[in-house]
Formats: sequence, C-alpha cells, structure tokens
Amino acid sequence: MCQLLGMNANVPTDVVFSFSGFACRASEHADGFGIAFFEGRGVRCFVDAQAANVSPVADLIKTYPIRSTDVIAHIRKATVGQVALENCHPFTRELWGRYWVFAHNGDLKDYRPRLHSHFRPVGDTDSERAFCWLMQELAKSHASLPSPDELTRTLRELVPQVARFGTFNFLLSNGEALWAHATTKLQYLVRQHPFSHARLQDADMTLDFAQLTQTGDRVALIATEPLTANEHWTPFQCGELKLFVDGQVVEVA
Amino acid sequence: MCQLLGMNANVPTDVVFSFSGFACRASEHADGFGIAFFEGRGVRCFVDAQAANVSPVADLIKTYPIRSTDVIAHIRKATVGQVALENCHPFTRELWGRYWVFAHNGDLKDYRPRLHSHFRPVGDTDSERAFCWLMQELAKSHASLPSPDELTRTLRELVPQVARFGTFNFLLSNGEALWAHATTKLQYLVRQHPFSHARLQDADMTLDFAQLTQTGDRVALIATEPLTANEHWTPFQCGELKLFVDGQVVEVA
Repeated sequence: MCQLLGMNANVPTDVVFSFSGFACRASEHADGFGIAFFEGRGVRCFVDAQAANVSPVADLIKTYPIRSTDVIAHIRKATVGQVALENCHPFTRELWGRYWVFAHNGDLKDYRPRLHSHFRPVGDTDSERAFCWLMQELAKSHASLPSPDELTRTLRELVPQVARFGTFNFLLSNGEALWAHATTKLQYLVRQHPFSHARLQDADMTLDFAQLTQTGDRVALIATEPLTANEHWTPFQCGELKLFVDGQVVEVA
Repeated sequence: MCQLLGMNANVPTDVVFSFSGFACRASEHADGFGIAFFEGRGVRCFVDAQAANVSPVADLIKTYPIRSTDVIAHIRKATVGQVALENCHPFTRELWGRYWVFAHNGDLKDYRPRLHSHFRPVGDTDSERAFCWLMQELAKSHASLPSPDELTRTLRELVPQVARFGTFNFLLSNGEALWAHATTKLQYLVRQHPFSHARLQDADMTLDFAQLTQTGDRVALIATEPLTANEHWTPFQCGELKLFVDGQVVEVA
C-alpha cells in the first residue's frame, strides 16, 4: 500500500517539516514518490522512481522551501502497475483551464471504467484510471469551473461509484481547494492560532510554529497516518469526503 | 525573448553537460526556466520562477543525471504574461494516452485562437494558447495516436496557421519523437560515432563523449544558439519543421 500527505493553507506555506517526516516512511514504500505544489494557478510536480528517503529529488524538497497553498504527496509501494515514472503519483490533468492533481492509496479490483472522453491514462495503474474517470465525469457535469461546494456535491455522487471496487483513499486539488476521501485510512489536523511546537512521529525533529507563523495563518494537514506525535489528529470515517479551503474543513450541505 | 534546448536520443541519455551551458544564459533570461524529461511514457517537468543560474531546482538538474530519450528545456525572458509559475514553459498536456510537452520562443501578436474543445490555457501566454490550439487540432485530425510521420504531415498544415501571427520557434515531444520548428532561430547537431570531445560555448567545460558512449549511441541536440564551440551546428531554414526520432532527423515525404 502507499501513503498520502496533503496540505491546504490560507497563505503559501512550505511543507519541509511534514515532508521530512513523511519521507522517512519510504523504506517500506520504496517504489517511487511524488509531490505536487500549487503556486497560484501554476503547479509543479516532482516525481522520482527512487524512494523518497534516497532520491536526490526528495532531498531538494527537504531543503528548498517551496511555498504553496495546496500540496499533494505520495510514496508508493507498487501493487498494480510496474515501477515506472508514468505510474508515479500524483497525476496531473487540465480541466476548465485549471490543473488538477490526484493521488490515491488503495487497490481497486478489476476496475475498468468506460473512458469514452478525452482523459486517458498514460500508465497502467488503477489509480490513474480512477482519476481519468473522475475528470471525465466532472467535465460532463459542469460546463465551466464550478465553486468548491458545487464540486463537492458532484464528487459525492461520483466517488462511491469508484469506491465500490475497493479501497479508495485519495487526495484531489485544483489549487483552490483540496478534497480528501477515505474508505479505510486518512487522518487530518488543522493548525491555527495559538500555535505551538510539533514533534515528528517518524524523525527526531521538532518545530515551534509559534515562531514561524502570523496570527491569521491556518494550515490543514491530511495524512494516511498522523505525522506528528503530540498533536490531535482526527480520523476520517469510512466513506467520508471532506472539502478543505483556506486551511479548514468546509461543511457542504 | 527566450531560449530553447531540445534533445532526442536513441538511448536514454543525460543532459547535464548541455544544460550546464544552457543555464549560463539565464542571466539575460531571468524570468524562470523549465525542463521536461521523458522516461518511457512517463514525463517529469521541473519548473521554477527563479532564473536557471540561481534556482535550486536547476542545481539539481545540473547534478542529478536523469537519463531520458526526449528532453525539452526553456529559459524565459517574459514578454507576454507575468512572471508566474503557470507561465513557465514547458507546458504539458495528455492526448491519446500520451503526454505532450511544448516550449516556445517568440511572440505571437494578437494571437487568440478559437479554443472550442477541451484544451484550455491555465496561464496567460501566447505560447500556451498556441500549444492548446495545436493539441485541439491534432485531436480533431486523428482518432488515436498516429505515427510520427503522420503527425509531421498534420503539423505541416497546422503550424503555418500559427506562425503567421509572429515568431514561432518551438519544440514539441510525446516521448516517441521530437518536432522542432523555426521561423527565426534554431540550430541542431547530431552526435554519433566516432564521438570526440565537445567544448561548451558558455562555460569552461569540455567533455569527451568517446569515453562515455557506445558505438551505436546517437543524440540530436536542438538549441536557439549553438551550445558548443567546436562542433558543427546546422541552422534551420525559416519555416522549417523537423522530425527527430532515435537521435536523427527523419525526412517525411
């Protein structure tokens, strides 16, 4: 299985601290990694078929503080699809003049959706097929970019149609909002004023966010397993889809 | 104006040497850079809004030898579109289950093509509009991925329709072939057996390719200005579109 890390913030924020802890998990998930950063409408996605604990690309991410409002990262243990660059998450597509980034944890058994439109998988993972299908169905449902709330309502109809094929924990973002869905394992945390220190679960690193933040800053972190040992992470319920905007959970009627 | 660098090879080859020379030109083209590497069907695209001579991302590219058969790099001096990540070349889209990468040098005046299909620009450059239009028209011309020869014939019809708006030097690749088109400035070089040493034009660096290559290796390099001082670069004719496959020019009837 793979592991996911997501971040959604109300001001551009770097993920050096969180990614450093996350990358430690790569010894068990050694079949590549990837991380995508939205900066405004632009996105940059770093992928490597090497493990995140040895990859020079991951070293860059750990030392170059890229400030972003939406980040999606993934470390991979190959189950479906060979170890190759085209099978590394996150995947990216353009829809309605925005980039969309997707990463998945889980297996979708015998998942062969009807891809009759213009989103086609390049690699051979179940994950990329699911992403292409979601993009296709979103494109059919809306003529142009709808609000995050509207998109959440559409995703609520679409996601269960994929989830019945297996485990479908995923992160999806268009740089404006981040959606997280869990069928088995996903936890989240909102960091906001008053900030204090955080201690990584997987590495001997502590950071005092009170020193680094402004009062109004707010950051949501989403991960397969809690990244920090001394903060309260909230587990997702089975089948729960959450919308994150500006570093917090938005409830959609 | 910007500068372009392309590579097409018959075996996965790194571009550390060529990129090191190319990045020296960034002092005059300081508004970001980008480089995309095809590895099999997969592609990874590194972009930074910082100049290639100071960017930590460019440092990684100069020290981490990524082996690829098709590379497209670009250093940018902003003329149209602000300095922002979404305006950094190369641009990437998926079509027929393959990634397509595009970078452009030149200005297209008042270029507002009719984009009625599903390829939409995310940023606000003339270049990305041209790429979206080419993708749209290629998608209309072929139901599935045609051969490089077929695509060349289609591009011959499409490219002049863009080029009449201004300067349209570009590089395009799907990882199987690389197309280069010049209206003003582009030069190329094929390196093959017997290999010898090459000396960079822009930096005090010499490399003896005879030490690093096998007899059958073949690499084509395409650049706005010759990258090496002691090799014979061939200038493109105005309006010339060339197809590169396996490190050599392929003539298409």
